[in-house]
Amino acid sequence: MRSSLSDEQRPGLATATPPVRHVLSVRDLPRWWMEQLMAKAEWLRSLPRSAVGQRLSGKIVGTLFYEPSTRTRLSFEAAVARLGGTALGAENALEHSSAKKGETLRDVLRVVGVYTDAIIVRHHLPDELEAAAEWSPVPVISAGTGSGEHPTQALLDLYTIRREFGRIDGLTVCVMGDLKYGRTVHSLLRALTRFEGIDVILVHPEALGLPEALARELAAAGLRMRREVSLEAALSAADVIYQTRIQQERLRSAEEAKEAGALHILPGHLRWMKPHARILHPLPRVDEIHPDVDVDPRAAYFRQVENGLYLRMALLDELIGDHGGEVAR
Amino acid sequence: MRSSLSDEQRPGLATATPPVRHVLSVRDLPRWWMEQLMAKAEWLRSLPRSAVGQRLSGKIVGTLFYEPSTRTRLSFEAAVARLGGTALGAENALEHSSAKKGETLRDVLRVVGVYTDAIIVRHHLPDELEAAAEWSPVPVISAGTGSGEHPTQALLDLYTIRREFGRIDGLTVCVMGDLKYGRTVHSLLRALTRFEGIDVILVHPEALGLPEALARELAAAGLRMRREVSLEAALSAADVIYQTRIQQERLRSAEEAKEAGALHILPGHLRWMKPHARILHPLPRVDEIHPDVDVDPRAAYFRQVENGLYLRMALLDELIGDHGGEVAR
Amino acid sequence: MRSSLSDEQRPGLATATPPVRHVLSVRDLPRWWMEQLMAKAEWLRSLPRSAVGQRLSGKIVGTLFYEPSTRTRLSFEAAVARLGGTALGAENALEHSSAKKGETLRDVLRVVGVYTDAIIVRHHLPDELEAAAEWSPVPVISAGTGSGEHPTQALLDLYTIRREFGRIDGLTVCVMGDLKYGRTVHSLLRALTRFEGIDVILVHPEALGLPEALARELAAAGLRMRREVSLEAALSAADVIYQTRIQQERLRSAEEAKEAGALHILPGHLRWMKPHARILHPLPRVDEIHPDVDVDPRAAYFRQVENGLYLRMALLDELIGDHGGEVAR
Repeated sequence: MRSSLSDEQRPGLATATPPVRHVLSVRDLPRWWMEQLMAKAEWLRSLPRSAVGQRLSGKIVGTLFYEPSTRTRLSFEAAVARLGGTALGAENALEHSSAKKGETLRDVLRVVGVYTDAIIVRHHLPDELEAAAEWSPVPVISAGTGSGEHPTQALLDLYTIRREFGRIDGLTVCVMGDLKYGRTVHSLLRALTRFEGIDVILVHPEALGLPEALARELAAAGLRMRREVSLEAALSAADVIYQTRIQQERLRSAEEAKEAGALHILPGHLRWMKPHARILHPLPRVDEIHPDVDVDPRAAYFRQVENGLYLRMALLDELIGDHGGEVAR
Repeated sequence: MRSSLSDEQRPGLATATPPVRHVLSVRDLPRWWMEQLMAKAEWLRSLPRSAVGQRLSGKIVGTLFYEPSTRTRLSFEAAVARLGGTALGAENALEHSSAKKGETLRDVLRVVGVYTDAIIVRHHLPDELEAAAEWSPVPVISAGTGSGEHPTQALLDLYTIRREFGRIDGLTVCVMGDLKYGRTVHSLLRALTRFEGIDVILVHPEALGLPEALARELAAAGLRMRREVSLEAALSAADVIYQTRIQQERLRSAEEAKEAGALHILPGHLRWMKPHARILHPLPRVDEIHPDVDVDPRAAYFRQVENGLYLRMALLDELIGDHGGEVAR
Repeated sequence: MRSSLSDEQRPGLATATPPVRHVLSVRDLPRWWMEQLMAKAEWLRSLPRSAVGQRLSGKIVGTLFYEPSTRTRLSFEAAVARLGGTALGAENALEHSSAKKGETLRDVLRVVGVYTDAIIVRHHLPDELEAAAEWSPVPVISAGTGSGEHPTQALLDLYTIRREFGRIDGLTVCVMGDLKYGRTVHSLLRALTRFEGIDVILVHPEALGLPEALARELAAAGLRMRREVSLEAALSAADVIYQTRIQQERLRSAEEAKEAGALHILPGHLRWMKPHARILHPLPRVDEIHPDVDVDPRAAYFRQVENGLYLRMALLDELIGDHGGEVAR
């Protein structure tokens, strides 16, 4: 299962302690750890369901969604259930909880950490979450923070690219849509800096480009990026086409709405794409990918959903699973 | 367990594949399948709890309630839990989910179907649900659609009648209350068209009779129906008295409210009823059945709740249960 | 496990039937039963997780929160999960349920009691809950009622005192904050009347003292109480310092707000306290205990949270657990 890691990628004996305690930002995740996680996702997927259904037996995972997200919550809760654990949570933590009474997130995590073995949190304030996690008695996993990051989405995006292409290094990745506020794009681009020979093509309405600070950070990390205004040029050059939704409230004029609409992927655009290209999307999708595109084998976004399930299973297993019965690492 | 089915009712060998994939409308359910389901409910109920607690082991059932309904949701979730499965869901899917972002129900079911083995949906638009279910990778069960149908309620109503009377054919069924918007009545009447010799008595305020299209459909299917304005005449003629709640907002005048109030079942009415009559109600009940009626043995509505649990267990077991250990069918 | 009970505390053979069916008020709980529960909590805590994970196997516990409370709900649900049961519930029962349609709580409990083996209810009307519980087919446990009681909080408070001091009799307990509306204080004081030689110091803003009826009830039950206006005098005399939050909306003037602020426990106050004093708090805490106090070993409030988990496990096990495998009582 670890054979995919070269010796250089493996941590030395001195770091035998797991270096990842909380998963709050892609910035904290070394490549070897991400590779290991993807390998574990692949391994868990290869096993019959009954063979993985005891790995979190007796374990409890808390889910605190300060911003509701049925989709991400269900994905994590399904991962917990598949491993035999129990997910307990608050579908709408902001509304229904002590947060209204003025309790700090730090206290919330200390308390919920008594009841649980790991806590999955969606919160609007990344810095506050990071500071509070210091006090948590159990691992904290971000399920997205405001317009900040969405690290597990980035991990499942990488895993999808790896499954579809057999590799990540050397690919041309076109990220499309709202690059300014889209946290999934931010996390994915940060994750891509860990890989070699990546070319990034940026396609976005004028007003929704990458935040300058992030662009500088990525460039400093050596990521090659260029903007492309021709949709045809971008789609025909890309291996991975990562489309994202532009929220209506981000568009401030009819002009901008028209610009955004021009980035929709329509069935007629499929002929521009390479035969082995793949279209990814973090979902939910509204009309930025036409539903008739779904049947094209290059549409990978529903496979991406399934990959997310296995990736999150791997993540939970890695952080809190009972590995007693396995061959020693 | 299948001995209650006559040979004519049994599907031929040619239809050995289960003919029911989704459960969205009573119209899709043949009599033999409903009989089989009731027989399975009876069988599951006869077993000790521990003997049924592995039948959905490792299985995940999603519950998506676009209209909140604690009662129906708990009934399904309890059925899942009794069979050893895990229920994951959204108590308030409309408010807390991607629906707000404009995602189609079709996409929701495709995604949730990746995480789950079956999806229970309460949705206000029956046609949209039916179209979306086509795309679901797993069985979809309706938990009620707007003023449309509530198929599992009809199944548990039938099961209750069968348990209380030992048969369904040949009974006189009085349906009372809001026959215009009451989806449970609509589903029950459609289900009754599958049986022989049923007489239906309709008791309702002037403005809340059966929709004309439904009345025509039922008549065309051979269901004998007549309206009765005398409560005493109706109650004394009926075997099954199926009372329903009239929502206040349906009543547009003091006159109509008075007319609705006259249909309440009060302790004094019990003497009109046959000794072996049974009162059913889909619940929740407000004041259309006086609480003092509850202690009469003819009040079957709380037994009906319990029947619902076993019927839903049977349904889930039938659609996604692991039947490996059973005698081959 | 029962060795802590003296013979006088034990119920006679004539009361071999468990005397506690519902847990709605501390008033219904005899001392011997509370002692037994604390002993069981201690015993469950001493066992490995896997050894307790089957005690509610196949059991279903309903949680109905008419007032949302993520914290208390999670505590109960974690207790259920640790014992191998399944918790099903309504995070926001008032909003999403039949209550809106006018259904009585009595009907709700009768119905939910069909699906479950016990029901945990947070409700704003204690009398209504008590009356409705009479009709429940399964045990009902209060998770707090309006400004009434919070019996399981009192039990976990007692358990914490017992763990920290080795005893409850003979201690000086200072209760601070909102003694008028604070239901946790009310329940704790009622519970303390069951013990010997307790001295209670009351510290509160002028307008937020104990309700007169309660003060009379406690005095009649023999509880020694006195008010103290000097924070230093109170803190230096107390063994147990039970701090509580004062809700902003209870304070009607700047004067009262200042008075409330003077009751905050700050790091500088620690030197007033006895070396073996303990600070308890039902949580959530806002600023009535400064976070720098947390690291002092006398700060017992996070240990209190953990005690609550074990106490609630003991309670559920006592009421509905499968004791078949244990030595006969």
